[in-house]
Amino acid sequence: MSSTGRERITIEVGGGGEESQNFLKNFLLKHLSNFLLDSLEDATCLNLPSKTIAFTTDSFTVKPLFFKGGDIGKLSVIGTLNDLAVMGAKPLYLSLSLIIEEGFMSGDLERILESISKASRENEVLIVTGDTKVVPRGAVDGIFINTSGIGEVIYKGLSARNLKPGDVILLSGPIGDHGVCILAEREGFNFEVDLESDCASLFPMLEPLFLANLELHAMRDPTRGGLAGVLYEWAQASKVDILIEEESIPLQPQVRVFCEILGFEPYHLPSEGKAIIALPKREAPKALELLRSHPLGERARIIGEVINWSSKPRVFLKGPYGPIRVMELNNGEFLPRIC
Amino acid sequence: MSSTGRERITIEVGGGGEESQNFLKNFLLKHLSNFLLDSLEDATCLNLPSKTIAFTTDSFTVKPLFFKGGDIGKLSVIGTLNDLAVMGAKPLYLSLSLIIEEGFMSGDLERILESISKASRENEVLIVTGDTKVVPRGAVDGIFINTSGIGEVIYKGLSARNLKPGDVILLSGPIGDHGVCILAEREGFNFEVDLESDCASLFPMLEPLFLANLELHAMRDPTRGGLAGVLYEWAQASKVDILIEEESIPLQPQVRVFCEILGFEPYHLPSEGKAIIALPKREAPKALELLRSHPLGERARIIGEVINWSSKPRVFLKGPYGPIRVMELNNGEFLPRIC
Repeated sequence: MSSTGRERITIEVGGGGEESQNFLKNFLLKHLSNFLLDSLEDATCLNLPSKTIAFTTDSFTVKPLFFKGGDIGKLSVIGTLNDLAVMGAKPLYLSLSLIIEEGFMSGDLERILESISKASRENEVLIVTGDTKVVPRGAVDGIFINTSGIGEVIYKGLSARNLKPGDVILLSGPIGDHGVCILAEREGFNFEVDLESDCASLFPMLEPLFLANLELHAMRDPTRGGLAGVLYEWAQASKVDILIEEESIPLQPQVRVFCEILGFEPYHLPSEGKAIIALPKREAPKALELLRSHPLGERARIIGEVINWSSKPRVFLKGPYGPIRVMELNNGEFLPRIC
Repeated sequence: MSSTGRERITIEVGGGGEESQNFLKNFLLKHLSNFLLDSLEDATCLNLPSKTIAFTTDSFTVKPLFFKGGDIGKLSVIGTLNDLAVMGAKPLYLSLSLIIEEGFMSGDLERILESISKASRENEVLIVTGDTKVVPRGAVDGIFINTSGIGEVIYKGLSARNLKPGDVILLSGPIGDHGVCILAEREGFNFEVDLESDCASLFPMLEPLFLANLELHAMRDPTRGGLAGVLYEWAQASKVDILIEEESIPLQPQVRVFCEILGFEPYHLPSEGKAIIALPKREAPKALELLRSHPLGERARIIGEVINWSSKPRVFLKGPYGPIRVMELNNGEFLPRIC
């Protein structure tokens, strides 16, 4: 198979024969070649800088495949890098597994592979092992991508179980951009919005915090489930309550308008380039200073605190005029295939 | 969601909210709980025994999901363990990523998770990180599973590029069982066959070879693409020819009959519990003795040799009556979703 972009991916590409070999050469290695991936063995041998690593996996089923600010390829690299970064790990290596529908346009695949290549180059990680399955028409909608990642743990001890009353909650920037961007572009919503997905790698912004000898308790990126999902996990795992000041949550105006018109809560919408951090209050000024010195963290701020109010761990939201209500969890009904 | 087996998996399970939490508890942790997975962080921190590891990934799209001798769950563990084992690595840790169609029967999911649990326990590996996506009806056919694996390299230097003229090719047992089993159970084939998939973990059989100080050049398990696919990759990567004696390839009688009637070549059909090994001829007797001392390797034998005949790397097949022909590569057309 050559590659003018208008061919369609055939079942034979996934068969392990000559077409598979051609596909590897003309598509995957064309974009992703490096000395480790090129070995094309069943597994790739790696020499790690340390015996303490972080390991993560994520499958990406986003629809549409291409959206403002990114595509499924970029997302599948960045999403996994961020899962490593929020555990205190410097991302090193990724695996890449493609499940492609028979008949998928080769030009779309090339665009996706270019994005994967760009995102991994920019973030100095190598894709070192992979797998491609082609399934008959109708067995998958277009393309799904799994990446797994290995990183070197440079800051130990971050955990959802570590929150303590007196901690404050930092947010690195406005939330919901990715969710609004995907929903607005999706059939049925028909909502024009001048907003890009915030899909971005968090490690460069977070590394200074890891190196600064700060006491950090927990860190997450609010993807599926949004800010509310992370805070609930933390409250339950640490058996604490969390109180968030609604007005302090940074939002882009487009996200605010989208949510007001369509009835979403911004804290239910996923972001793909934001970090939530729980840490002792005394560490907050230094952490904010470090976050704000990176372009991704310019709007970082304290949005709440860890408290100990009720018998059952909950997350509370303090409204602009004082009243306090419970922050509801999103049930996810409207948000399939958001990442 | 409780779990009588007759509920259906809902979109909300993938949404990151309360249903996601319930699903984790009632399905995933019920079957797969261990001290590392239970942390439920975005990535899992691991302390490795060595800095030299093997890393691999595979997505499983097999249809039917349940077949004689296994199911997609068992296959998704064993397949990745075997990719590590044939690179000389002792499997340690797996990731598990599920892509589930909305409406999938919870009872089927439980059977699959039980198989994953059993296969990982039996092989002393831990599933340490995971991800679950639920996509709307029609966006995926039932369930696809990705596993990635990390192993400790205990034998270094196995590579498809290492074959040398004078090497012999060993095969650990009869091939094609998995392929015949899946094809026979598939709609359209309608072929009753009393045969199980050979899906089995290779590391216990291979470990003695790694520890015996033998000189081993290359090792693979012939899954997609079958025996022919592996031999072609080796011939091309090492720039050698390979000559296989057709009669020496061990086959179950059911596989022989299936291939004769339906016109398949056994060396195109995938196996899921066999190893192909290239090594210097002088090492073969010891290697065969070690292989045969394990139940999976009882029928291990030499099936061919590495030669240097032609200018273009090829694989030749010597028939029972002497004539030599080229072993054709399978184009995979009839074999989508075989693993």
